[in-house]
This record gives sequence, structure tokens and C-alpha cells, in this order.
Amino acid sequence: MNMARPRVAFQGERGAFSEEAAVKLLGADVQLVPCATFEELFAAVDAGHADYALAPIENSLAGSVHRTYDLLLQSTLHITSEVIIPIAHHLIGNSQSSLETICVVESHPVALAQCEGFFLAHPRIRRVATDDTAASVRRVMESGDPTRAAIAGSRAAAIYGGTILSEHLEDHKENYTRFVLLTPEPGVCKDANKLSLVLRLSHQPGALHSALEPFANRAIDLLKIESRPVVGQPWQYRFYLDLSAASNEPKVAQALAELRERAAEVRLLGCYPAAQAKTLGKQM
Amino acid sequence: MNMARPRVAFQGERGAFSEEAAVKLLGADVQLVPCATFEELFAAVDAGHADYALAPIENSLAGSVHRTYDLLLQSTLHITSEVIIPIAHHLIGNSQSSLETICVVESHPVALAQCEGFFLAHPRIRRVATDDTAASVRRVMESGDPTRAAIAGSRAAAIYGGTILSEHLEDHKENYTRFVLLTPEPGVCKDANKLSLVLRLSHQPGALHSALEPFANRAIDLLKIESRPVVGQPWQYRFYLDLSAASNEPKVAQALAELRERAAEVRLLGCYPAAQAKTLGKQM
Repeated sequence: MNMARPRVAFQGERGAFSEEAAVKLLGADVQLVPCATFEELFAAVDAGHADYALAPIENSLAGSVHRTYDLLLQSTLHITSEVIIPIAHHLIGNSQSSLETICVVESHPVALAQCEGFFLAHPRIRRVATDDTAASVRRVMESGDPTRAAIAGSRAAAIYGGTILSEHLEDHKENYTRFVLLTPEPGVCKDANKLSLVLRLSHQPGALHSALEPFANRAIDLLKIESRPVVGQPWQYRFYLDLSAASNEPKVAQALAELRERAAEVRLLGCYPAAQAKTLGKQM
Repeated sequence: MNMARPRVAFQGERGAFSEEAAVKLLGADVQLVPCATFEELFAAVDAGHADYALAPIENSLAGSVHRTYDLLLQSTLHITSEVIIPIAHHLIGNSQSSLETICVVESHPVALAQCEGFFLAHPRIRRVATDDTAASVRRVMESGDPTRAAIAGSRAAAIYGGTILSEHLEDHKENYTRFVLLTPEPGVCKDANKLSLVLRLSHQPGALHSALEPFANRAIDLLKIESRPVVGQPWQYRFYLDLSAASNEPKVAQALAELRERAAEVRLLGCYPAAQAKTLGKQM
């Protein structure tokens, strides 16, 4: 394993937003391992294809990425870092295209949905849903068709030689995606100030309130809660918590010990430094 | 408005699981109003096209339907009923087809993902993602192509004259979808025992714990919590709660009054009779 140039797996084709996040977190020198599916992404480290996996976990508009939450539960990988990137959607076509020549625009359904204003302003343009923003750019470039364009990030345009026909199609500028870096071993970062865990509760009135109490009583901030269904037990849920807490603080250890007494199942997913979301927002 | 035969809007084409849910809840005599998108579905009542709208809110395996939660917030409609239907995925093709002739299977991505075992057992069959289970059946029937099949419910097969080539492709039998019935006026059902609301909290440690306390202290059961991002305020959330409570119980009114003191924003989405999920499970 050449740790001087670690290999990071991401979901999507070259030029995907995930690739941009990988480079932002690990540097331009990182070896990029594209994976066609989320299942391949989560299997890439165990299979020896990558040292790390980088998974999108949340978009500030679309919300949680359910598939990542579900695969985190099945995986033994640990969250050891996170990174947030701004999502800017551009209209990308061939060099002989212009906004006027475009009749069809293809992209991932989430990207299409985040550019509603653009499509309302251009009712003659038809939307086509695909499985990948960057792959849409690749296919448009391969087609050479001046009536086709894709919506994707600027990295996809650069990689496939696409021309940006119109910039910033996104309806909301405050559009970010957060990714988690997954590694085989838990992190030992002294700057860790964020804790992720998943828990399952007995089904009784007040169970969630009781599970949050050890943290609330110690002024440990709950940053996010996500519930996901328990497979095979309809209308029962697991809860994923993100807490503003360092695992080496005594009050955090106390709260976790108390939680374990109250919950049917508690698993730490990782302790890592929180990404600087606010700074990023101001940079835009 | 002919209330003897109320009109109910649902998302999807004729034969969709939503249509099956509408008939189960409102009877075979109901007038069915198919809507192409969730936006059209939520607009159908205001536009005078339907008396009610029926929206899928949760699948017991795939989890919450984000789009429904987000549109509920924008809408002034009230939840006045809910219904749960079992989801059985069948392979549907032309009458001259058989499992052996099929090369391509199309369906909604969630349906395809819920039949993983079938595709692993038949690696030569290619999956094609579409936007609708029932529409996939319609297109397969229109094509007359014996190599194409769709995955959908039995209602879609009946409506489009499709042949069920293989039954129950779903990986997990405990597969249900819950739908909410939306009406312009709040319900006044004396059997109401379930309460849905959405709230927003000030961002401070313990805010969610404090918001749940009025219910926990009165042994009012929290059935579900869903968090959705606040648009324009990255990493801030609204919480949707389902509670086992009748709005005319004094302890519920007390809890809601206490909640309003603690939350920045509280809106009741509806009070309605809970669907009999357990009974349904046993019927299978």
C-alpha cells in the first residue's frame, strides 16, 4: 500500500462531485478509484481496491443520502474525516453548442430538481434523468450532438473537454454536499470534535427522549438525527446521531456509558474533526 | 363536488401502488385522478381537479419519501387519514413471454433495488430504471416485445393486460408502504389516535430533547421522527413527529402548549386514525 499516494474510492465516474470532494480532502495527488455503485464503493476497501472510501452522506437541500446510512450499518468501516463542498450546477455541452441550440438536458434527478428555475425559464428544453452527472457530460461529448447538454460540476467539464454554456443553474446558492471518509481503522485524530453513532431503542414511550438525555444534561450538542427503518420490522427505526463532542472528553465517555444503559444497541461510527461548513459558506 | 363519488389524486399512472392504496382506503367506487408528478399531486386539490390527494410517505424498507415531507410543508392540506398496503413485486410481460425469454426488466429504481435476489439469480437480465412501475408495464405491453418485462404490482398487470411471469420478486416480505390522505379541511374524526406535526427549534444544545419532553413526561408515544433540511440554512433541520395521541385528550393539548413554548415554530399537520399495520402484516 503506497500511503504516499493513497487510493480513494468514490461513487460515480471521473469528474463527479465525489471526486472533487476527494481531491479537496486528500489533495490533488490522491489516486482516484471510481465505483459504479454505492455497493462497490463500500466493498472497495475490503476488496483491496482502495485505502479509503468517500461517501456522500448529506446534501443541504436534498437531505440525507439513505443508501450511505444503510451501507454504513452493514460495513465495518469507520468515519475518520468529513468534507463539505459547494455544489454548483453548470450547463455543459459541445464547443459548437450554445444555450439556444440545446433541446435536451440530461443529469442526475437530484441535479435536475435543483435547477427548477432554469427549466421554467426554458420550457422548450426537455429533461432526461440519468444515473450520474459526470457520465452525462461524457455521453454528451461522445455524441457530438449540439442539441444535447448535461448539468454537472465544472470538474466534469474540464475532464471531458465540455464547454460551460451557462453557469450556476442551481436554484439555491446555499447548496452543499457533505461526504464522510471511511477507513478500516478508527481515527486517532487529536482534533476530533464530532462523534457519529447509531443506536436502536426498545419501543416504549419516551425512549428517544431518554436516549438524548445523557447528552442534553451535559450540554453536548446534537448536530443531526436521522432515522432509518429496521429491515423486517415495519415502523421500527434505528437512529443515527451526530454530536458535537470529542471522544476523549470525560463528559462524552460518561454520556456514552449512560446511553448504553438505556439503548438496546449502540455502535460508534467514528470520531473526527468537523468540516468547516461556515467558512465554506462565506467563501462563496 | 360529487361527494358520493369523491375524486382522489395520486402520483403515477393507472395501476400504480398509489392507486391500489386509494381504492383500499376509499373504496372501488372512488374516482381516480392520476398525476404525473408529486408537484401536480399536491396542486390537484387547489386546482379543483380532485377532492383529496393521496401521497406515499414511507416504505418500511426504503424509508421516508422526502418529496412528500417537503411538499407537505409548502401545502396547506391536512392529513385526515392514512392507509398501509403490502408491496408485492411481480415480473410482468406479454402473454407470449416467459421468464426464459426476458432480457430486460424495467421499473422504478426502488422496486428494482427491492428485488436484488432475483437479479443475482438471473445475471443475464439487464435492469433499466424508469420513473413509474405501472407505466413500465404499459410500455412493455405496448412494445409487444417478448424480451422485455416490468416489475410492478398485480393491479398494473390487470389494468394493462399483462401476464405475471414470476410472483413475489421482493427480497423482504415485510414490505409495506404507508400513504396519507390530504384534504383541504382538518379532520374531525372521533377515532383519531395519531397526531402529525412539524417543528423547528432554536439551535442550542438539548433543543430536541427539550421538545420531546412534554410528550415523554405524559407517556405519549413518539411513533416516528423525520428530519429535513431547512432550505437556505445548511445543517439546520425541521423535525416531523408522529405521535400516538388524540388531539382531544387533555394531556395532548397540555403537551402541545408546552411544546409551543419551547419551539420556534410548531404546525399541526393532522390528527387521524392510525392504520392497522399489525393486522395487515398478519394477513400476508
